[in-house]
Amino acid sequence: MITVLKHGVTKQQRDQLIEWFEEQGLGVHISEGQYQTVLGLIGDTSRVDEELVASLEMVDSVKRISEPFKKANRKFHPENTVIRVGDVTIGDGSMVMIAGPCSVESEEQILEVASRVKAAGAGLLRGGAFKPRTSPYDFQGMRAEGIELLLEAKKATGLPIVTEIMSAAHLPLFEDVDIIQVGARSMQNFELLKELGKLHKPILLKRGLANTLKELLMSAEYIMAGGNEQVILCERGIRTYETFTRNTLDLSAVPALRELSHLPIIVDPSHATGIARMVEPMALAATAAGADGLIIEVHNNPPKALCDGAQSLTPDQFAQVAEKVRKVHAALQ
Amino acid sequence: MITVLKHGVTKQQRDQLIEWFEEQGLGVHISEGQYQTVLGLIGDTSRVDEELVASLEMVDSVKRISEPFKKANRKFHPENTVIRVGDVTIGDGSMVMIAGPCSVESEEQILEVASRVKAAGAGLLRGGAFKPRTSPYDFQGMRAEGIELLLEAKKATGLPIVTEIMSAAHLPLFEDVDIIQVGARSMQNFELLKELGKLHKPILLKRGLANTLKELLMSAEYIMAGGNEQVILCERGIRTYETFTRNTLDLSAVPALRELSHLPIIVDPSHATGIARMVEPMALAATAAGADGLIIEVHNNPPKALCDGAQSLTPDQFAQVAEKVRKVHAALQ
Amino acid sequence: MITVLKHGVTKQQRDQLIEWFEEQGLGVHISEGQYQTVLGLIGDTSRVDEELVASLEMVDSVKRISEPFKKANRKFHPENTVIRVGDVTIGDGSMVMIAGPCSVESEEQILEVASRVKAAGAGLLRGGAFKPRTSPYDFQGMRAEGIELLLEAKKATGLPIVTEIMSAAHLPLFEDVDIIQVGARSMQNFELLKELGKLHKPILLKRGLANTLKELLMSAEYIMAGGNEQVILCERGIRTYETFTRNTLDLSAVPALRELSHLPIIVDPSHATGIARMVEPMALAATAAGADGLIIEVHNNPPKALCDGAQSLTPDQFAQVAEKVRKVHAALQ
Amino acid sequence: MITVLKHGVTKQQRDQLIEWFEEQGLGVHISEGQYQTVLGLIGDTSRVDEELVASLEMVDSVKRISEPFKKANRKFHPENTVIRVGDVTIGDGSMVMIAGPCSVESEEQILEVASRVKAAGAGLLRGGAFKPRTSPYDFQGMRAEGIELLLEAKKATGLPIVTEIMSAAHLPLFEDVDIIQVGARSMQNFELLKELGKLHKPILLKRGLANTLKELLMSAEYIMAGGNEQVILCERGIRTYETFTRNTLDLSAVPALRELSHLPIIVDPSHATGIARMVEPMALAATAAGADGLIIEVHNNPPKALCDGAQSLTPDQFAQVAEKVRKVHAALQ
Repeated sequence: MITVLKHGVTKQQRDQLIEWFEEQGLGVHISEGQYQTVLGLIGDTSRVDEELVASLEMVDSVKRISEPFKKANRKFHPENTVIRVGDVTIGDGSMVMIAGPCSVESEEQILEVASRVKAAGAGLLRGGAFKPRTSPYDFQGMRAEGIELLLEAKKATGLPIVTEIMSAAHLPLFEDVDIIQVGARSMQNFELLKELGKLHKPILLKRGLANTLKELLMSAEYIMAGGNEQVILCERGIRTYETFTRNTLDLSAVPALRELSHLPIIVDPSHATGIARMVEPMALAATAAGADGLIIEVHNNPPKALCDGAQSLTPDQFAQVAEKVRKVHAALQ
Repeated sequence: MITVLKHGVTKQQRDQLIEWFEEQGLGVHISEGQYQTVLGLIGDTSRVDEELVASLEMVDSVKRISEPFKKANRKFHPENTVIRVGDVTIGDGSMVMIAGPCSVESEEQILEVASRVKAAGAGLLRGGAFKPRTSPYDFQGMRAEGIELLLEAKKATGLPIVTEIMSAAHLPLFEDVDIIQVGARSMQNFELLKELGKLHKPILLKRGLANTLKELLMSAEYIMAGGNEQVILCERGIRTYETFTRNTLDLSAVPALRELSHLPIIVDPSHATGIARMVEPMALAATAAGADGLIIEVHNNPPKALCDGAQSLTPDQFAQVAEKVRKVHAALQ
Repeated sequence: MITVLKHGVTKQQRDQLIEWFEEQGLGVHISEGQYQTVLGLIGDTSRVDEELVASLEMVDSVKRISEPFKKANRKFHPENTVIRVGDVTIGDGSMVMIAGPCSVESEEQILEVASRVKAAGAGLLRGGAFKPRTSPYDFQGMRAEGIELLLEAKKATGLPIVTEIMSAAHLPLFEDVDIIQVGARSMQNFELLKELGKLHKPILLKRGLANTLKELLMSAEYIMAGGNEQVILCERGIRTYETFTRNTLDLSAVPALRELSHLPIIVDPSHATGIARMVEPMALAATAAGADGLIIEVHNNPPKALCDGAQSLTPDQFAQVAEKVRKVHAALQ
Repeated sequence: MITVLKHGVTKQQRDQLIEWFEEQGLGVHISEGQYQTVLGLIGDTSRVDEELVASLEMVDSVKRISEPFKKANRKFHPENTVIRVGDVTIGDGSMVMIAGPCSVESEEQILEVASRVKAAGAGLLRGGAFKPRTSPYDFQGMRAEGIELLLEAKKATGLPIVTEIMSAAHLPLFEDVDIIQVGARSMQNFELLKELGKLHKPILLKRGLANTLKELLMSAEYIMAGGNEQVILCERGIRTYETFTRNTLDLSAVPALRELSHLPIIVDPSHATGIARMVEPMALAATAAGADGLIIEVHNNPPKALCDGAQSLTPDQFAQVAEKVRKVHAALQ
């Protein structure tokens, strides 16, 4: 960590600060510039409060040199993390497709979608049982019953299942779920992340609508710090001023996260754009950008879906997207 | 709700859509323009899925005319909601100041800060017991012990207390807390909001970093829909590209929320700016913009605070801010 | 255009408004809902001031149904516009690569880069002569001399050239330039756009850092309204809160602009990310998303470039990117 | 400037970089940390290309310590700059009000508005002659004729005038204009800024919709570097995801710019919100935040204004706002 002092700081003030750093077990290296003095802190600065130091009257600015995430950091784990769920591997250079409806609506629906997406090449089935809805008057998901139907679909098709959790209180219902999804709005539900850190089950962690990539990695770190190192990162669009799409899919997140972390990265073009006809180009773009997987909404009858119909593909459309995704993926091997 | 059809839609397609709307109990008024046909839906459209309709091939665009929040809506409740906590009223035209440390750190600290902010005119004491921290390695708050210390401070000074909840599982600890705060990161923790809707206690609901005012009101609606209509809205800065301040305080939120809702509105200049020396001008600006109250971080020894020291005032600085706030408030009566 | 009246508007007020619309040559269709009355305007509403109507006391909201851009609009020109420059075509389903240094620095530099990028498959040469720099103390480009060197490189290699204009006063220098680039900061320099509308030369129009896609199309409309319909749209990253990349490349702009407009669309991964090692994944992603071309910074000696060295590829790196771009493009034919 | 090297950089690589810095006339101070080596550059680093250095393979990150703006920087000019126009002073602790219509529309209109705003306490008259409009089909202003009418209004009332320039080519028409305004869209029209730097006339420089405060100061620096040090900074709202207001007024810009620079700061609540009824609360808030002035749109007949009627006050409404602004300003003396 580097601390830049303001011009005109007295030697006495400076020495007090140095002493305070040293009390925290840090070495301090002084570099005097023409206009400003810079203190370089040596040692474990991960517990130094950057904003606190920056707030001191005598301090001009502070810069943290080493990132505050450790377990998610590629620097300390150069090899890619590969996650295995059933026969599926995520993060080993293959391209996994996770598909299914926004919401589980009925046995018939989930069974049909599951078999159709499996036939089209999906490796996992997704489906919402607990639904975060902006309005309290909107359909909130089938909840426990929805999870049971997903498990039925898993039994019928053999596809492992991914579904979202909204509260640690529901964890008992998720025992047989293969991958637990943390939605964008829960990315910084730290109490939930801590509970998930105690599990031995992969967590699909979605980036919040206004969260930086480093914050996403800090949230992964919360889970990993508890002992659960099976985290899958998911880019699903961020909020900007553009209104044509629901959110702005930030595909540079893929190479950026690849550089910063060893964790697998998947992309959700359905929620990012909110528009079914934009799922294909964005799925292809994510593949070309190097994503490890895609999570795509598929509904057997989109215009009647109970939520997010606008962004769901039909099974036939999904099969077409999957086919093209494989072509792009193959072209880059 | 208005549905604009694309140019070239056939009469048959149009009739199918109209039939579908009518099945949902809605009246449909057809308006044919030179280029486009517009369907006006008559009746209770609050359960029609706007995005679903927009996703239909034949539909050009959809516009919802009436807001989907009811209980928080000024249209249906023209009178301001006034919340009473002990001797303090919020929302009646007075200006309430909520002050205290970011984190409760020790008995000595909270007692001293409490008595100092009371002397300076604060009406409520704030203090963090459960702390949402970006890093799992940062101080997470004194938790249950922190709440006990706040209650002690309440007993000593008579100030009602405000503190943040991070999980519904902690609710038993909040029984004697006067106002429960929902932090920005929890604004869309819908499962938590539902639980808070069952209480008979005011909830201070902070706007999320990337949430619109209408989303804030929808979150208030979640609490109110459960039966708890004592919600206080709080603007605390939104995330933009500007980096000088931690967030961008959106003071136009004050008159905007005033127009849209009858709920009291308070402003948090400490978290919004993240810089102690900017708290005063922003507190004064919020007062002039018409806020019902302010929530300000005060620490007896800012540079040693365990979190957010950068944005805390000393008790003396707070007293000065409070004095000026009263002047601005008085000037506008 | 649809105008929604507030609840409680009197018939007299309504009739006055209708009369005012009719004075402007519009037909008005009245649709009375249970709570609100909606006026549908029939005729040419392109000159009605939407914000003005919205400002009226009796008006709740206004929605424009037809976009205010005509010449750039795919609705009125379903066929793709194809632009021809020398032997190169842009917008016909092929993938064109525009490459070259951020700044023209010397005869030797531009000649070497030009021949290298040509060999690697670039169809056009780019190079900055007039440079928009944030600081007045930074290198401002070789200006007139830079354009002369580009023309020399064109003569030597046969590559048509693309270079940025910053002021209509410099137009005489651009007579032999093949494509004139309008930079992100000039996207709404309307006086400049009007002058470019008088030319018979393709204009490469970059999206501003905080401009919506519809605003980009309105700026294209400025040029086209003057008679010059050869406009190429360019996505080059927008400003968000994310700080890892310089800007956030919005690749959903590609399918969105494709739907809204018939103009060719190219993507600039160099400026969008500001990081050389992210150019390849983003170039591939743009190709997969359906872009008509790429504009990529290439420098013969990146670490000594006078500007934006951080984002320049070496000619060898560019050749590798170009090769992979062709693979992805071919895979999707 | 501080350059942090990556872990594992060899001594030879490091020495090459140091040599390269020294060739540029800089001293280099080496600080070896446990994990990383930091180079502190001593001397005039204002011409070192930060992004270029950051792009080097061996470099982890770069941090500029001293801001790249000099003439606009309070560090080097601790005293406030006070600008005098006629009898009006801006920046001396007084509160100046600049008022007038969005567009000059007719002699009658501008004369009436001018006399009315003068009576209400405005110190300067504003009015648009050249109008930057998003659509080429919208009213573009009365241009030269509009400036003549403003000069007539100045003659009639004695109020100095402020009006926007869109191209340096129009400068001859601005000879008798008292303050030349640079609009948000022109903030980085660097060729225009350079021309304005040659004048002896105050420039009112508006912040761009997506520009940081430091970029605003760099644009001020462009003007000042040319010799014209009379620059007035103007906050007028930035673009965010919030849609209720047209832009988000960033009032923390006021104390932030006050700290960073010695130049006067004014606030434009009309364009920021785009809603007439929000002008008063935001004008009061700006005053309380410490602004030196306000620029407010006033129209004698708002609903018929040719542009931006939604945000214009009537003269009576303006008089009321001005009265309250004076009260808040007085309360804080």
